Amino acid sequence: MYNMSPDPIVRHARREDVPAILELIRELADYEHELSSVEATEEKLLCTIAFAPSSTTSTVPAADETESTSSNKPARCLILLSPQGIPAGIALYFYNYSTWRARPGIYLEDLYVKQSERKKGYGKRLLVELAKEVVALKGGRLEWSVLKWNEPSIKFYESIGANMMSEWVGMRVDGERLNKLAALLD
Amino acid sequence: MYNMSPDPIVRHARREDVPAILELIRELADYEHELSSVEATEEKLLCTIAFAPSSTTSTVPAADETESTSSNKPARCLILLSPQGIPAGIALYFYNYSTWRARPGIYLEDLYVKQSERKKGYGKRLLVELAKEVVALKGGRLEWSVLKWNEPSIKFYESIGANMMSEWVGMRVDGERLNKLAALLD
Repeated sequence: MYNMSPDPIVRHARREDVPAILELIRELADYEHELSSVEATEEKLLCTIAFAPSSTTSTVPAADETESTSSNKPARCLILLSPQGIPAGIALYFYNYSTWRARPGIYLEDLYVKQSERKKGYGKRLLVELAKEVVALKGGRLEWSVLKWNEPSIKFYESIGANMMSEWVGMRVDGERLNKLAALLD
Repeated sequence: MYNMSPDPIVRHARREDVPAILELIRELADYEHELSSVEATEEKLLCTIAFAPSSTTSTVPAADETESTSSNKPARCLILLSPQGIPAGIALYFYNYSTWRARPGIYLEDLYVKQSERKKGYGKRLLVELAKEVVALKGGRLEWSVLKWNEPSIKFYESIGANMMSEWVGMRVDGERLNKLAALLD
């Protein structure tokens, strides 16, 4: 599990990484003062992420070595290990689709680098690995969302080639409203 | 293929529906004055959408009867047939993921109802079918995006229970910028 090279290692998460992944998810939520919103548990993450096999010796991300994604298990997760072997960052993502291009792409749901491991280019490294996977897929787009007030992040994202989709707004139905919509025509 | 009932039928798209799906995609793009942006072809759609088998007699959406989704084929498509058997609308979607909930969901990439078939509740019907699938998945959210200036659509979406995610903005890397990002650390 240890990374003895001077460089960080990025690879697909394995089942045994789940405690570290949950810790990073909880750190991110705590940072955003939203820790109470985290319903994720180790068990739920194990059921909903497509993992790489534990036996693999691969130290580079290779999506085709991980479990297949499915409607119940749509997520994949990259994990970055620091040269000291510390799980320093994660990128949780799923596959999206562009109708007009009729091509798949990747949507990055959550990117997090541990506070003590920042300013080392780890966030950029994770984004580059995802861009490589989109290219390998012959995909069209790498997409994610950012809080509008988070100007430092927006500037960083623009510096690596991202455009803001300012003309669009997301709509969401969840919780009791979702059950109500599902039953609307019954 | 004909729907002899007085009600519309919504089912998962089959391979033989692809010409009708492409026509609806092109109509939507033309309506938005973006026809030249459509790179989709019948062949590309056949390779990137998970279809229901042609032999199925099912006239209700049943995602577990369609091909598995995958990174190369992340999309599913619901098609609505009018009582006259006209392919009147489509909902193209994929599975997304909420990290904090550790649950899957559905992202609706494109919803379109033929202009001549509007004001019949077909858009609502397609949204209800997707909400049902999210509930069946034990998923957390049904999400999509809308152009900010499209107030009539936003009002309709809010009326069926959707919240605007106004504090978030989408970021996208595509085209030559995607290749550049993928090669940034080489």
